[in-house]
Amino acid sequence: MDDLLSNPAFRTYALCAAILAVKMLLSASYTTIARMRSQGYANPEDARLFGASGPAEPAAVAHALRIQRNDGENIPLFFAVGLLYVLAGASAFGAAVYCWAFTAARILHTITYMAHLQPWRAISYGVGVFCLVGMAVQIIAAAI
Amino acid sequence: MDDLLSNPAFRTYALCAAILAVKMLLSASYTTIARMRSQGYANPEDARLFGASGPAEPAAVAHALRIQRNDGENIPLFFAVGLLYVLAGASAFGAAVYCWAFTAARILHTITYMAHLQPWRAISYGVGVFCLVGMAVQIIAAAI
Amino acid sequence: MDDLLSNPAFRTYALCAAILAVKMLLSASYTTIARMRSQGYANPEDARLFGASGPAEPAAVAHALRIQRNDGENIPLFFAVGLLYVLAGASAFGAAVYCWAFTAARILHTITYMAHLQPWRAISYGVGVFCLVGMAVQIIAAAI
Repeated sequence: MDDLLSNPAFRTYALCAAILAVKMLLSASYTTIARMRSQGYANPEDARLFGASGPAEPAAVAHALRIQRNDGENIPLFFAVGLLYVLAGASAFGAAVYCWAFTAARILHTITYMAHLQPWRAISYGVGVFCLVGMAVQIIAAAI
Repeated sequence: MDDLLSNPAFRTYALCAAILAVKMLLSASYTTIARMRSQGYANPEDARLFGASGPAEPAAVAHALRIQRNDGENIPLFFAVGLLYVLAGASAFGAAVYCWAFTAARILHTITYMAHLQPWRAISYGVGVFCLVGMAVQIIAAAI
Repeated sequence: MDDLLSNPAFRTYALCAAILAVKMLLSASYTTIARMRSQGYANPEDARLFGASGPAEPAAVAHALRIQRNDGENIPLFFAVGLLYVLAGASAFGAAVYCWAFTAARILHTITYMAHLQPWRAISYGVGVFCLVGMAVQIIAAAI
């Protein structure tokens, strides 16, 4: 296993995966902040915990949940596809391009989603999908 | 790491994981197509981007989102459980049966969901769950 | 690959990941039970399959779905972060503490969510997040 971390491609993947995991936890906090600000809790017991009158999901909470949902549809794919791409013998250069482009695209996706900026959000989503498809094609080519 | 790809069990897993990642991205496109057809966008800024009047989530979009949600509850489990199953020393035959049965079941699940076909959708869901439980049991048996 | 399972840190991770995968499948069954009890199905074809009159999502189903959603936002992160943490050379002790604390926290989260017990649910959520952040920080420290 020591040879895994001595491989720069694997190291890049590990670094990006850890950053994206923390990024997803921060998006969850953003939803919690939206709930507290708008007093919109998902469950009656949560409303009581924070001293609010009852559950409700106003627009700001739904917006924050959509950011999390989009992450949930994309970042777990990177966890799997990125790992297999570097295990299938990716070059250090290829791994650096795909992993950092994906990581930057997903962080920009969250920022542009929070700021309601279109078409920048759609473009950053597309860059992330392009990286996933590129790595998936390379895995399929190596495995068949 | 070169020995990983020379292992046929790992190669089968890598191939199926890549196919399923692309399949999840296609399901996301299906949701986008449903949104465009029904002019039902999740955010006001998206509606403006596509020249529609405002956000709304009609039945077709909710249907497409449920397909994605079901994938999201099952395919990331395969990414983890399938990887650990082949790393725990699965035979080439066992990996071929579990990985291809799961992959076929999840693709059939999407097709039968899109076509509103019950009980075929429930059956393909069940086959996928059976594969996940089978691999999880083998991992637990190997690890304890 | 044989050396992976001979590594106690990897074995602990594999065991916990398999347990959590089965736990997520059980949470999906809990949603199905809530649907059957309250006759609240997601799709008209499902309602017909179970002989109910039509689709609806009453409070009990929405509650079960929120349990699944919270798992979906946390457990896939463990699949990736836990794997990279043990592959980056975690000690057997470190892996045992992080993996079992996370696994126990997520099981307690589901139980306390099902029983509407706050603040215990928030505390178990926090323990899980703490484990994920702890492992992510160690991966980043090892990879840079």
